[in-house]
Amino acid sequence: MSSRYGQSMRETPAYSAEEGRKDMKKADIGLVGLAVMGENLAMNMESRGITVAVYNRTVSKVEHFINGRGKGKNIIGCHSLEELLDCLKKPRKVFLMVKAGAAVDDIIHQLLPLLDDGDILIDGGNSYFKDTIRRTREVEAAGKLYIGTGVSGGEEGALTGPSMMPGGSKAAWPEVKPIFQAICAKADGAPCCDWVGEDGAGHFVKMVHNGIEYGDMQLICEAYQMMRDYLKMTDDEMHLVFKKWNEGELESYLIEITGDILAYKDTDGEPLVEKILDTAGQKGTGKWTGITALEEGVPLTLIGEAVFSRCLSAMKDERVRASRFYSREIVEFKGNREEFTECLRQALLASKIISYAQGYTLMKTAAEHYHWNLNYGGIALMWRGGCIIRSTFLGKIKEAYDKNPELSNLLLDPYFESLIKSLVPAWRKTVSAVLQAGVPAPAMTSALSYFDGYTCSSLPANLLQAQRDYFGAHTYQRIDADRGKFFHTNWTGHGGDTSAAVYDV
Amino acid sequence: MSSRYGQSMRETPAYSAEEGRKDMKKADIGLVGLAVMGENLAMNMESRGITVAVYNRTVSKVEHFINGRGKGKNIIGCHSLEELLDCLKKPRKVFLMVKAGAAVDDIIHQLLPLLDDGDILIDGGNSYFKDTIRRTREVEAAGKLYIGTGVSGGEEGALTGPSMMPGGSKAAWPEVKPIFQAICAKADGAPCCDWVGEDGAGHFVKMVHNGIEYGDMQLICEAYQMMRDYLKMTDDEMHLVFKKWNEGELESYLIEITGDILAYKDTDGEPLVEKILDTAGQKGTGKWTGITALEEGVPLTLIGEAVFSRCLSAMKDERVRASRFYSREIVEFKGNREEFTECLRQALLASKIISYAQGYTLMKTAAEHYHWNLNYGGIALMWRGGCIIRSTFLGKIKEAYDKNPELSNLLLDPYFESLIKSLVPAWRKTVSAVLQAGVPAPAMTSALSYFDGYTCSSLPANLLQAQRDYFGAHTYQRIDADRGKFFHTNWTGHGGDTSAAVYDV
Repeated sequence: MSSRYGQSMRETPAYSAEEGRKDMKKADIGLVGLAVMGENLAMNMESRGITVAVYNRTVSKVEHFINGRGKGKNIIGCHSLEELLDCLKKPRKVFLMVKAGAAVDDIIHQLLPLLDDGDILIDGGNSYFKDTIRRTREVEAAGKLYIGTGVSGGEEGALTGPSMMPGGSKAAWPEVKPIFQAICAKADGAPCCDWVGEDGAGHFVKMVHNGIEYGDMQLICEAYQMMRDYLKMTDDEMHLVFKKWNEGELESYLIEITGDILAYKDTDGEPLVEKILDTAGQKGTGKWTGITALEEGVPLTLIGEAVFSRCLSAMKDERVRASRFYSREIVEFKGNREEFTECLRQALLASKIISYAQGYTLMKTAAEHYHWNLNYGGIALMWRGGCIIRSTFLGKIKEAYDKNPELSNLLLDPYFESLIKSLVPAWRKTVSAVLQAGVPAPAMTSALSYFDGYTCSSLPANLLQAQRDYFGAHTYQRIDADRGKFFHTNWTGHGGDTSAAVYDV
Repeated sequence: MSSRYGQSMRETPAYSAEEGRKDMKKADIGLVGLAVMGENLAMNMESRGITVAVYNRTVSKVEHFINGRGKGKNIIGCHSLEELLDCLKKPRKVFLMVKAGAAVDDIIHQLLPLLDDGDILIDGGNSYFKDTIRRTREVEAAGKLYIGTGVSGGEEGALTGPSMMPGGSKAAWPEVKPIFQAICAKADGAPCCDWVGEDGAGHFVKMVHNGIEYGDMQLICEAYQMMRDYLKMTDDEMHLVFKKWNEGELESYLIEITGDILAYKDTDGEPLVEKILDTAGQKGTGKWTGITALEEGVPLTLIGEAVFSRCLSAMKDERVRASRFYSREIVEFKGNREEFTECLRQALLASKIISYAQGYTLMKTAAEHYHWNLNYGGIALMWRGGCIIRSTFLGKIKEAYDKNPELSNLLLDPYFESLIKSLVPAWRKTVSAVLQAGVPAPAMTSALSYFDGYTCSSLPANLLQAQRDYFGAHTYQRIDADRGKFFHTNWTGHGGDTSAAVYDV
């Protein structure tokens, strides 16, 4: 199957409207699910000359959209799945923007009998990559093609150009590529969307993206809390700090919107952010990233702490109660505010490097496990624009992997090596100051502990192995013997010489 | 079904040998799997007057055991499952000590058709509690009874008296109670074994026990590394420190064996522990605890860091390579060694309190989810003796839950409140010193961050919610409005007013 648009797309990044009009009655793509992301993706597609047919289970939403934002646009409202499929060009492409989980399976099972061989189902929600692995198998077994694609950029990105991370049935890629690369974000002229890999690879990479997003947001929150509670800065002062940070190495969407948020005033003229309840929600992808890291045995400490921080924030009532048991006296800051915010900037940047280094290690390890050929520089480019974690920083990661696609850890790239070396003193200073002061900084401190552990040739796990051998005969290796040779010591002089290594029925 | 031994057992903790001899040809219990734990459990049972029939898939191990450690004992060697079942009193009790996972299902499926209704299968391995939930259902559906029991204490505990945490088919409990409470450890005269709860509750509590064990071991390792690499103490000096610590609040099996290990000399007279390779192994239960915490949304940061630390230790070659990129210069310690080791002791104790507080929160949350009626004081008593984490400390936890069974967090118990308050200054001092010095202390620092977060009435999650609402229309609650009322702000002035809360097909 070769793309009908492939040729022209190489010349022009915008979707050819003329191609779309050849068959006035038929739409180029169907979209199911008109929540905010679905609506905005439809608007985005339409704005590139793509004719979109839309359907929503609650049909009144179709009417609402068609007569509202979609009015006068090249958007066809449909009242059933059958009607939707009837007005699609072949091979049909159906883009699902429904809630991850059972709803995706439901709609797949409704659609499969209605589709022709070679038609393409696209799941653009935040599906668990293991579900996407299973669904790709199921849909391919039924003769159809499946794509699970990460779509990041939130409401705004969906409308103006998201980062897209498609994986699944490779045969479907040439068919959807022109549409995806027309609607996606561009960074330095290149589309922030490319083929990621087989079955669940796209959703896996999106999941790691979201985990990293959790980490980035947590780091910013820690910096904000230090400024607010330790340096006693006003929201306007913090706004200026983030604005300044956004001009340097930290330049990124999240730093930018944080600056905006801190400046946003409520109707009474006070900063709105200070009126928001401090209980964070989550939608599961950060949690999945942590679970996957545990499954794969990859130390992903920063994202782990970020997920747990959201859980802790949600225990608001208990925290308020606990705060009465332990009256907080955050030690007053007595130094130079400007100097400390610069230390803080460096601590944030160093921690961010650790978070990405951990995330990339997770991708490398999982790629081996699931037999994906991931292009790590390409992934950095996909994240470089359009998505929530977009940043200039990702350009540097792309450079690192372009230089050395086999790089085992970001910390071993010369640019990041010298950068992090320059940041270490301020990083240590910041976290030890706030730990003394009583301001929680789980992500930044955890990142520093990881750095100290990762760069430590002799960790104390020798004692741990001795303990395990002592109480469970789990055996150990020796530094003066070949690897893979296991020893057991009868530490107590009794208990038998049977080692647990020969655990057998 | 009432116990035949129940009455006498209440008077004497030892199993009545006379009862056992009534039917000389029949054994009281069958045991499958003669690895180190299985062998030692058989020896333990036999020593209490219980007649044990044993079987192992590799039959030569049966012979080896019967003619070796089992020689002249009341132990019957069997060469097939049928033979094993033939020599058991009814209702038959078959104790499986096989590798967790598929091997357990295999043996259950081999045994089920051979059993009579009311016979009891007991899984004493480290099975995943969700498997035990499923197996209880399967075995009960076949008319038999099922027990999944945690058994902790390692090689030594299995032999002399382990901690046992049984759950599953409640009807089986009176049948196995006399045997379990005869062979288990005793703490202050009480058996460290009692009924935990339905289906997977026993294995769940054992899993949390193992997670806590990961945490305890990691904390000891961090203290050891600080003494070794920062205070530059010898193994003999560290041995004395742990010996002293074992006389106070930290008194526990793990502190005790750490003291022993540090004193143990290799054949050349040098400390053996320093010749052991620093790559920690794991058998999955710590990982499962972390995964369960993520699934349940419970911040279990210390155990999480402990699991990840094992993963990091396993990356030995990469750490050695990274250590060449980042030459380590651990800042020289210049203070009073004795004073610092006392700070260290306090930091370890404080961190340990956090770890148990987190573990108990996980149990409370999961108990609600899985509908288990857990007795938290009873669990502390089961862990009080016999198992790897046994300690005087657990006696204090038992007291806390005996006083207030509804205690929502250990940190809100008056004893622990005043204890931790006394420890905080030394804890802060220790972790900020080692973070400055460059010694990794992920568990102790993470514990302090949790403490500062848990006791903080205003975390920075308000900013996080603003960010989520900004880019994803995820909505937020306000401090000046009712809980459960959600707001969305159009922060940018464009992008539509549809909020993600109405995510629907």
